[in-house]
Amino acid sequence: MTPDILLTDICLPDPFGDAPLKSNCCLAIQGDSICQIGPAHEFDALEAKRVIKGRGQLALPGLINGHCHAAMTLFRGLADDLSLADWLNNYIFPAEARYVQPDMVYWCSKLAAAEMIFSGTTTVADGYFHEHHAAKAFAETGLRAVAAQGVIDFPAPGVPDPEKKINHAAEFLTQWRSHPLIRPAVFAHSPYTCSPGTLVAAKELARSEKTLFFIHTAETEQEISMIHDKQGDSPVRHLHNLGLLDAGTVCIHAVWLDEQDLDILAETGAGIVVCPQSSLKLASGKAPLQAMLARGIRVGIGTDGAASNNRLDLIREMDSCAKLNKLRNLDPVAVPANTLVNMATQGGAAVLGLHRKIGRLEEGKHADIMLVNLDTPHLQPVHGSDLPLYAIQGSDVQTVLINGILVMQDRKILSFDLEETVEQVRRLAEQVKKSL
Amino acid sequence: MTPDILLTDICLPDPFGDAPLKSNCCLAIQGDSICQIGPAHEFDALEAKRVIKGRGQLALPGLINGHCHAAMTLFRGLADDLSLADWLNNYIFPAEARYVQPDMVYWCSKLAAAEMIFSGTTTVADGYFHEHHAAKAFAETGLRAVAAQGVIDFPAPGVPDPEKKINHAAEFLTQWRSHPLIRPAVFAHSPYTCSPGTLVAAKELARSEKTLFFIHTAETEQEISMIHDKQGDSPVRHLHNLGLLDAGTVCIHAVWLDEQDLDILAETGAGIVVCPQSSLKLASGKAPLQAMLARGIRVGIGTDGAASNNRLDLIREMDSCAKLNKLRNLDPVAVPANTLVNMATQGGAAVLGLHRKIGRLEEGKHADIMLVNLDTPHLQPVHGSDLPLYAIQGSDVQTVLINGILVMQDRKILSFDLEETVEQVRRLAEQVKKSL
Repeated sequence: MTPDILLTDICLPDPFGDAPLKSNCCLAIQGDSICQIGPAHEFDALEAKRVIKGRGQLALPGLINGHCHAAMTLFRGLADDLSLADWLNNYIFPAEARYVQPDMVYWCSKLAAAEMIFSGTTTVADGYFHEHHAAKAFAETGLRAVAAQGVIDFPAPGVPDPEKKINHAAEFLTQWRSHPLIRPAVFAHSPYTCSPGTLVAAKELARSEKTLFFIHTAETEQEISMIHDKQGDSPVRHLHNLGLLDAGTVCIHAVWLDEQDLDILAETGAGIVVCPQSSLKLASGKAPLQAMLARGIRVGIGTDGAASNNRLDLIREMDSCAKLNKLRNLDPVAVPANTLVNMATQGGAAVLGLHRKIGRLEEGKHADIMLVNLDTPHLQPVHGSDLPLYAIQGSDVQTVLINGILVMQDRKILSFDLEETVEQVRRLAEQVKKSL
Repeated sequence: MTPDILLTDICLPDPFGDAPLKSNCCLAIQGDSICQIGPAHEFDALEAKRVIKGRGQLALPGLINGHCHAAMTLFRGLADDLSLADWLNNYIFPAEARYVQPDMVYWCSKLAAAEMIFSGTTTVADGYFHEHHAAKAFAETGLRAVAAQGVIDFPAPGVPDPEKKINHAAEFLTQWRSHPLIRPAVFAHSPYTCSPGTLVAAKELARSEKTLFFIHTAETEQEISMIHDKQGDSPVRHLHNLGLLDAGTVCIHAVWLDEQDLDILAETGAGIVVCPQSSLKLASGKAPLQAMLARGIRVGIGTDGAASNNRLDLIREMDSCAKLNKLRNLDPVAVPANTLVNMATQGGAAVLGLHRKIGRLEEGKHADIMLVNLDTPHLQPVHGSDLPLYAIQGSDVQTVLINGILVMQDRKILSFDLEETVEQVRRLAEQVKKSL
């Protein structure tokens, strides 16, 4: 067997995290998967169709962005330093009603894909309107995606008649049923913008198609009182009462949870994705990460959209998530760096039900890989045995492979025309500026 | 008059922050200072000795890092995820006793200077032992610095006999009295490692030399009870009772302040430098920034050393400081981005008593300038009228001038041999690794 690609001269972290990085390793790829990984001497007899020199860089599983609204790159910096309600109702919802159309979703998702690839993300769980065009953009950039069609109770981009939202989502699921990179799913916006009937129908659709159901849950303190007033219970218990929580449901944000909420999430096996930078910038609060992990809840980490962050850089996200959770209990030992690296790789894969396929560098897993350059001034010296999380930055990622394809090499995007994408987004942004 | 340097085709922020960036501007430099700034047409007749094309980049005042221990880059990542007491007593103090010598301070401060210049810092307020060698390193890299010699009650690197610490600091002040880039100062470590006598003598020395006196103050909750037990008052009141607080004193961290502490700091005119990433990673807490600013206290922002951060990137620091203070009061409107830009420029200059010389791009000020490339995928589009703080990263800074000297151009350090510096730091780090 001749591998398609051989990565040589790479470093690998010690699997137990207590020894120095192992230098001079190799990784061989056959088709879309890793077929061998280990010290260079085990690869002596191997000839590959293509050799990529790792130049001493650290190889790690590509990162998994558990929550994004990729197309919202168009609204980056449009409305900073505002409350969530003001931001949503007076800026984002009106801007979405006016500017979100297929062309916008396609180009802005493509730009988002570039930003994510540049900082080591190889899988994104995205949710938006016109998600068909986001899925198309991701597929063309080579980014792996769980692409979820948005469901909401008011007229939305692409679904002017709310009566048709479930049918629209069903068509989307059928259309993308068998793409190698794209897994279609359903995204119900929230318990405060979807009626119980909508929520049940959307989850039913996801169940029947054996796919994921996402929902923004318990993001702000105001949401808690709103749902209490309207539904007589916490958002999590409201979803549970409707029978929506199971291993196929992913609750996004989950900032305001009480003990019973946490117990229910653990018992039902629902997953969670926290978005620390978004929750910070919108001052929503701090998700109780330690309590989630202590209960064995599957937890991933996400960037949220560029309008509420304003970056799609999972490395920055991991760094702030670890530090915020230290501050939460004034305990600097809490939530060490490797907890976050796990959350952004195998943890995120588990939340998306993709842990058999991605999240680790081992034989049989898909070849979703980032190479990190440790040879920069701000990473001198490196004393630890793992990814120097508190010191690296997105731009240290040099090379990215997804599904066995070389998507970025030495910080050049190879899989699509980035310049054209930037030009198209600028054109779209000019229209937004003119109308401000 | 023929300017030495003319920057052409730069963008400038609207001075009132409510209009779009002004493109096609110029900035002329004569000697160490800005001699003209404005729209390109006002420069038509001007010929300069050297022209630097800004290529549409945003020109801003270089950033002012209000607190650093530059030489501690050697200990980056050496002891992450530990409590402050464990970190200090079991890792940092022993490592300092063993490895801090002139050669180490010189090379590791030089590496730190590179990291700071790479992310737009043009002035650092540093404090360490063997500070003479840090000052030498900064001067050679072209970085402007307030370099403060450390004073502490136990045997310290370079000062084995604690009796001689004040004399040692006095000699340092004399030696650097008239350097164009370096302003020497005094750094008393803290109220818990310096006796009242030491504090008074150190401040007296700073006063007699008309220079700054820095001190770590009210960093952790433990420090508050320690000083209460020993001195019968809060750290700030303890310093005030000793007569140490005036416009020449800068309190570092200032996380645990009560209302009376804040009033005293405001009345005495003492300055503060907050270090959000360090306080996060060590879980010390969140400094009450809004209360400080509301009282008109001068507040700057700093990175702290690389052992407790682990980066010296002031752009990352500004971003997290704004967001953390939104979270503090669950108020996303609080502490908008431009507050942080002010703190890292004119605010920081005011804390260091350098506001007449640096912190703004205007005629007569020293030419300390960074050019930021807004033309990257993660900055598309830019809707705001100012620095897109929540989206930029350190590596977006392309070109840096300090005191009229081109220190970095297109991300190449011009002022010193970076490769040699990295080699020397690696050599020093090998010794640390061997002894772990």
